[in-house]
Amino acid sequence: VADATKIHGLIIRESEPLNLEFPFSMLEQAITPRHQFFVRSHFSLPSLTAREWRLQVDGEVDSPFELTYDELRKLPAETRPATIECAGNGRAFLVPKAKGVLWGTGAVGTAEWTGVLLSNVLRRAGVKPNAIEAIFQGADSGEVTEEPQSPGVIHFERSLPLTKANRPEVLLAYKMNGQDLNPEHGFPVRLVVPGWYGMASVKWLNRITLSSTPFNGYWQSLEYSYFQRSQGRPSLVAITEMPVKASIARPAPHEAIPAGVVFRVFGAAWSGKSEIDSVEISIDGGSEWHSADLLGRPLPYCWRLWEYQWQVPRDPGRYQLMVRATDKASAVQPSGRDPDRRGYMINHTIPVDVEVV
Amino acid sequence: VADATKIHGLIIRESEPLNLEFPFSMLEQAITPRHQFFVRSHFSLPSLTAREWRLQVDGEVDSPFELTYDELRKLPAETRPATIECAGNGRAFLVPKAKGVLWGTGAVGTAEWTGVLLSNVLRRAGVKPNAIEAIFQGADSGEVTEEPQSPGVIHFERSLPLTKANRPEVLLAYKMNGQDLNPEHGFPVRLVVPGWYGMASVKWLNRITLSSTPFNGYWQSLEYSYFQRSQGRPSLVAITEMPVKASIARPAPHEAIPAGVVFRVFGAAWSGKSEIDSVEISIDGGSEWHSADLLGRPLPYCWRLWEYQWQVPRDPGRYQLMVRATDKASAVQPSGRDPDRRGYMINHTIPVDVEVV
Repeated sequence: VADATKIHGLIIRESEPLNLEFPFSMLEQAITPRHQFFVRSHFSLPSLTAREWRLQVDGEVDSPFELTYDELRKLPAETRPATIECAGNGRAFLVPKAKGVLWGTGAVGTAEWTGVLLSNVLRRAGVKPNAIEAIFQGADSGEVTEEPQSPGVIHFERSLPLTKANRPEVLLAYKMNGQDLNPEHGFPVRLVVPGWYGMASVKWLNRITLSSTPFNGYWQSLEYSYFQRSQGRPSLVAITEMPVKASIARPAPHEAIPAGVVFRVFGAAWSGKSEIDSVEISIDGGSEWHSADLLGRPLPYCWRLWEYQWQVPRDPGRYQLMVRATDKASAVQPSGRDPDRRGYMINHTIPVDVEVV
Repeated sequence: VADATKIHGLIIRESEPLNLEFPFSMLEQAITPRHQFFVRSHFSLPSLTAREWRLQVDGEVDSPFELTYDELRKLPAETRPATIECAGNGRAFLVPKAKGVLWGTGAVGTAEWTGVLLSNVLRRAGVKPNAIEAIFQGADSGEVTEEPQSPGVIHFERSLPLTKANRPEVLLAYKMNGQDLNPEHGFPVRLVVPGWYGMASVKWLNRITLSSTPFNGYWQSLEYSYFQRSQGRPSLVAITEMPVKASIARPAPHEAIPAGVVFRVFGAAWSGKSEIDSVEISIDGGSEWHSADLLGRPLPYCWRLWEYQWQVPRDPGRYQLMVRATDKASAVQPSGRDPDRRGYMINHTIPVDVEVV
């Protein structure tokens, strides 16, 4: 899989570890086909087999246990669509250049995930009253030798507060769009945490540890963290929920559009907190805003496709398109970049320049 | 002060910001003269005057207030000796090379600090029952543009849990060795936190904010932090207490020592947790250990000088000296480096090679 010459349809951002981006201008439908779904990995893909795989559940539980793949697949299953976006999606647009994989617009996708409610598995283990978090360990491991360096060889690990872990949208998924997961997407089993950025949806999951103290591992402290301000004072916290955001799929950057036609401006909008309430388009660099049409029906934790029929001017030249989403929690996509977010959570409006010809 | 050509007696590690090291082989007495005390700064030295300086106390307190320099100096004063070591002291010896100022052995010193008990000032403000930490802000500020980048312009800030803040050793100091502080050491007022590494002893202190939530600012998360393991799993925490450590002042590295003489091996040992219990010396690279003599009397939070009368062999050649301290809490100075400590807390034994001639 990591052989870059065998990858079709995705943009290679890094071939080892494997980091592949969906060409966002190819967006057509709400569900992203598996072969077009972006791939984010921090280490080499682990080689796992369904026969040997185990999920270990331990820590602050009454009954630590192990699940086999067959046992997991016999438990009651749910299927839920969910949008997953990488916390570094859009990093290529940051000025000055930020450290990390330089994702364009396409480190985001929506799939239908099938699996077992995490809360069911936690209930079976009997979570002790003093537990406050669940820590999820992936089978992927390695050493980060560039700054910030990891403390030797580490696994990819993230935690969830139990308030989120026990919510009904959080799955131990083994299928994506009706097919068994493939190695790039976490085979045999991954966590899926709808509403949160992708780093929470730990792939190649092999261990869940309940903890009575806050976990502050490498991937939620030195990496995948940002500054929150309290009375002006920045304090580092782990990245969690996706803020409201819309992205333009078409026109593509610098697309040539015939003067005078009606062009369908098209894209997607999402928010980890709530439904999308509205999407607005500007053709003049942000002076005037027009309502876009939201397509289909809202689905929890899924992006909403939108379109706007643009009466393209008769005057050739460069035009700047902008999009701005608002969610039902009244959060508005910001127009500018917030430096407290380090190289993450890039949801401000990124203009698309087009050529009317 | 920042003019490097005007600095005498200290090793320049960086001239802007000013970072100066005590040549540790010059150690003679328990109290380090002010002009030999190491200087650690993160930004340009702020220009402060006693007339204009204020200490603001706010946040979760019943009565926020401001203190002038004259008011502070009229409060009951205490004088306490304390050893302060930079958390990066010894970084030059790390392999592979670590990021940060490359301190040798001398980013450590002991001074007599005079000032007001922090607990007295906190009591005057009336700390609310929900407060758990005090956040200390220095007047020094700037932007860190290399990785890890700061969120724009920030102040140097650190917090203490109230359990430490209220201890009788913690001072708002305005004198060092009987003289008013000078600009490099935090004029007009600095915090002194005996037992903890130097980053806690915030210089140029101008604000104390009581907080009901844990503070996780830049200087105690991305910097001045290390990994603690719980069941093998590393979790990032702020650096606090100095672990047990001894350093050799004489012989200096590669010092030429006449064969057959008795040579006084000499140095200092300290621990943030407790008194030093013993110091041992090895001449043969760690096979055999000999007890050193502890000099003077133990003083809380101060290093203890030690010496060992070495009967130098009659055979010329290279010898490797090592030192190992144990404190009364039974902590033993480690022989090897722990990679979980990132570029900080370097207390393992660092051998000194000497030439017997």
